[in-house]
Amino acid sequence: MSTGTLKFSLENISQDIVKGNRRSLARALSIVEDGGPDAVWLVRKLFPYAGRAHLIGITGSPGVGKSTLVDALISEIRADGLKVAVLAIDPSSPFTGGAILGDRIRMQGHTLDKNVFIRSMANRGHAGGTALATYDAARMLEAAGYDVIIIETVGVGQSELAIAQTADTTVLVLMPGSGDDIQAIKSGIMEIGDIFVVNKGDLPGANKTASEILASLELNPKGAEWKPTVHVTNAEVNEGVNLVWKSISAHKACLESSGQLKERRKHKLQSELSELVADIARNNLKNSLAHSPQVQQLLNRLLDREIDPHSAAECVVEDIYSEKRK
Amino acid sequence: MSTGTLKFSLENISQDIVKGNRRSLARALSIVEDGGPDAVWLVRKLFPYAGRAHLIGITGSPGVGKSTLVDALISEIRADGLKVAVLAIDPSSPFTGGAILGDRIRMQGHTLDKNVFIRSMANRGHAGGTALATYDAARMLEAAGYDVIIIETVGVGQSELAIAQTADTTVLVLMPGSGDDIQAIKSGIMEIGDIFVVNKGDLPGANKTASEILASLELNPKGAEWKPTVHVTNAEVNEGVNLVWKSISAHKACLESSGQLKERRKHKLQSELSELVADIARNNLKNSLAHSPQVQQLLNRLLDREIDPHSAAECVVEDIYSEKRK
Repeated sequence: MSTGTLKFSLENISQDIVKGNRRSLARALSIVEDGGPDAVWLVRKLFPYAGRAHLIGITGSPGVGKSTLVDALISEIRADGLKVAVLAIDPSSPFTGGAILGDRIRMQGHTLDKNVFIRSMANRGHAGGTALATYDAARMLEAAGYDVIIIETVGVGQSELAIAQTADTTVLVLMPGSGDDIQAIKSGIMEIGDIFVVNKGDLPGANKTASEILASLELNPKGAEWKPTVHVTNAEVNEGVNLVWKSISAHKACLESSGQLKERRKHKLQSELSELVADIARNNLKNSLAHSPQVQQLLNRLLDREIDPHSAAECVVEDIYSEKRK
Repeated sequence: MSTGTLKFSLENISQDIVKGNRRSLARALSIVEDGGPDAVWLVRKLFPYAGRAHLIGITGSPGVGKSTLVDALISEIRADGLKVAVLAIDPSSPFTGGAILGDRIRMQGHTLDKNVFIRSMANRGHAGGTALATYDAARMLEAAGYDVIIIETVGVGQSELAIAQTADTTVLVLMPGSGDDIQAIKSGIMEIGDIFVVNKGDLPGANKTASEILASLELNPKGAEWKPTVHVTNAEVNEGVNLVWKSISAHKACLESSGQLKERRKHKLQSELSELVADIARNNLKNSLAHSPQVQQLLNRLLDREIDPHSAAECVVEDIYSEKRK
């Protein structure tokens, strides 16, 4: 893959990204999304530029109005003179890897603004992989000089949370009377939210939902530095969104002054490292599955129930080590 | 952990499970949920009993009425004289690992029936881990003689789909006018659905939603053996649920007669094996992170941006190999 010519063009891409070239940035994001040696090359090159932007994760169930809220937030962020990028992560199939067109054509109000960059990303084969691609995509955007990066995911499942946790500040969006969401929040999702937004505040029950969240927060206090905030918004008509943005900025200031930002980022790098190592192991196995007669034989023994999956996995790990030893 | 006494009591648990003791089964499911050497021991012991039951995955966004549908399906399955177990996987926090009480207290109509077993399971730290625990939990239920195992997950995200794919037959539940879900389905989730159910069929637009799904199915034909079916139900009043159960049974018959069942199960064992190997790698790293000064040093270099995450991961993999070689 990485011939001299390709390296040369990757070199060009990385140089152009730092100069703020949007086309090169788009190209780099595609490369990072696909993964592989070119993606690794770009990350190696641009990693020194990362760590400057404020990463904001925004998540919530389908239909609560996340995209509308993000759209309104972009206006607030731009009013502060900051450059902003949005990564919308799609809950697409592990098979097609296709992205939802709907997300791409939303947020059209900002398409002419050169300081706004919006991009959809498809899910990789597994949740960990998508989080890894998200980390790397954010690095490309940081190298391109974006001050704020919004990572928008759909849903409150495990994988969406893993992705939301790549952020410095996590915003959970709900709508009035979303009983199942409140259940999920009570059961623990709450712990990852720094800021809670009850959107569609014109619907009945908005204040009740906000009170329920506040009550849950008081039952599960999160630490002294930051007390999570709860906002009622109607993003459609831009109501309350400025307060959400103020709260996001206050959270960042709090992370910085308390030293928590460094702690959080260390923790994230640690998770990323362990996910990357697991990924290398998974890929090594994919190669073994295709090429190693030993692994094929194990698979057949598994099907015949002569061996159980855990013992088979241990055999494979042994195999990989002994192959490496040769 | 595995002292003689503990082994003895695990031995008892495994024997009692096969005899159909519900308390031992519940205990085994907790052990499997927690993971670790005791879980592996039980799976080794009971793996030969697995592979007999029909595994049905049921998934859909919050609020579409999955639990009500499952409740109604249980009645249909029991009417056919089959023993049925339900595993409800909760979208709980990676931090608390707590399960949602709501799911546990649902489906109360069947609590007195000795041939129905209902159990909530919390998500493990990562999506792959939850799928692994689901495989093992299903094995315990198969050893206990359940003919049908329903795996219910909340959401249409990556992790929920990974869990749904542990099943032989996957049922996707929607409700009328769930635009975002249809989007997701169009983008590829469709491929994993064998049967589609538009629940809450009394709401306006139910037939329109069913038609949209049918139209998408015709655009993406799935192979000759099985043509996915689309049903409109109102599970609350038990409308249309018998047809869903008939379709699930027909799908099973089709998998068996076409030889696809064996293919699917081989594919699942292959995924499980690669996830288990990745898991071993991840755990090895967790130990290294705590104990290895080399890994701690790498982490500090990462924080100072002297090294990028991909290069760091390669160093760690090399470290693990060379440690093993000693």
